[in-house]
Amino acid sequence: MYRVGMSGRYLEDFSVGEVIDSPEDYEMTPERIADFAREYDPQPIHLDQSAAERGFFGEMTASGWHTLSVTMRLMVRSPLFASGEVIGVGVDKMAWLAAVLPGDRLRARAEVLAVRPSASRPDRGFMNIRCTTLRGEPGQEEAVATQDWTVLVPRRQSG
Amino acid sequence: MYRVGMSGRYLEDFSVGEVIDSPEDYEMTPERIADFAREYDPQPIHLDQSAAERGFFGEMTASGWHTLSVTMRLMVRSPLFASGEVIGVGVDKMAWLAAVLPGDRLRARAEVLAVRPSASRPDRGFMNIRCTTLRGEPGQEEAVATQDWTVLVPRRQSG
Repeated sequence: MYRVGMSGRYLEDFSVGEVIDSPEDYEMTPERIADFAREYDPQPIHLDQSAAERGFFGEMTASGWHTLSVTMRLMVRSPLFASGEVIGVGVDKMAWLAAVLPGDRLRARAEVLAVRPSASRPDRGFMNIRCTTLRGEPGQEEAVATQDWTVLVPRRQSG
Repeated sequence: MYRVGMSGRYLEDFSVGEVIDSPEDYEMTPERIADFAREYDPQPIHLDQSAAERGFFGEMTASGWHTLSVTMRLMVRSPLFASGEVIGVGVDKMAWLAAVLPGDRLRARAEVLAVRPSASRPDRGFMNIRCTTLRGEPGQEEAVATQDWTVLVPRRQSG
C-alpha cells in the first residue's frame, strides 16, 4: 500500500493550473559550478577559463545537468514534495534556453498541467508538471530551462 | 565561427545508426549516492536507511538526477564528445526504468538517430541521440534510464 503521513499531500489535493514556486533560490557560485563539472561533466568549457573563452559560449558556463540537478533541489524544498512520496517517472520536452553563468541565482516554478488516477492501481495516480528554472529578480525573471515532468503521487484511500 | 581542433569530430563524421559505448563504468557507491542526494535531492528515500525501507521502493535508491548526471559523465568520456564542442540543446522522452541501487555499476550507450545540418547556419548542425543508461555485465545488461538528446555539433567548413 502506497500511503503517506498525515502532513502529506495526495493526488486529490492538486489541481490543474496550480503554480508552486520554490521558497528559496540557489547561487551558482564558481566553486559549485566547478565541483559539479569535475565529477559529472568534465568538459573544458565548464572547468577551464581560457578554454571557456575560446568555446561556444565565450565564457565559463555551468553544466546543463548542474542546472537540472539544482532545479530538483529547489523543487524538493517546495510544497510539491511535502508528501515525501512524489516519485519521478520521466521527463519530456526538456530544453536548455540560456547558458547559466557564475553568480546566477536560480529559482524553480512548477505548474500542474494534468492530474489523473492510475487506471490499474487505486492507491496512486500521475501528474504532469511543467517545471521552469528561472534566474533574475521576481518580475524580471528569465527562463534558463524548461521541462515537463511525469510524477507518481499517492492517492487518498476511500476507507 | 564554430570550429574545433584537428582531433575533433564534425557533423559529417557521424552517421545514423552509429553506436557509441562509454569506455568505462561508474560505481554508485553508498557514499556517492548520499553526497549527490544531500546537495541536489535531499529526500529521506535517498538519505535515510529506515525512511527508504518504509518508502516506495522499500530500499535505499539513488536520485534519478544522480543517474542522469553520471550518464553525462560517462558520455563525456566517450568518443561522442571527442570534439569538445558538442552542446546540449534539449532532452525528450526521458524515462527512469528501474531504481538504481547502491553498488550498481553504470555504463552508457549512445545511438545516433538523426543527423541534419542547420537550415540557417552553415557552420553547425544537429544530432538526435538515444542515450541509454545500463547496469550489469555486457550481454546481461538492464536499462535503468533512457532519453533522446538533441545536440549541436560543428560542421566542417568547405573552404
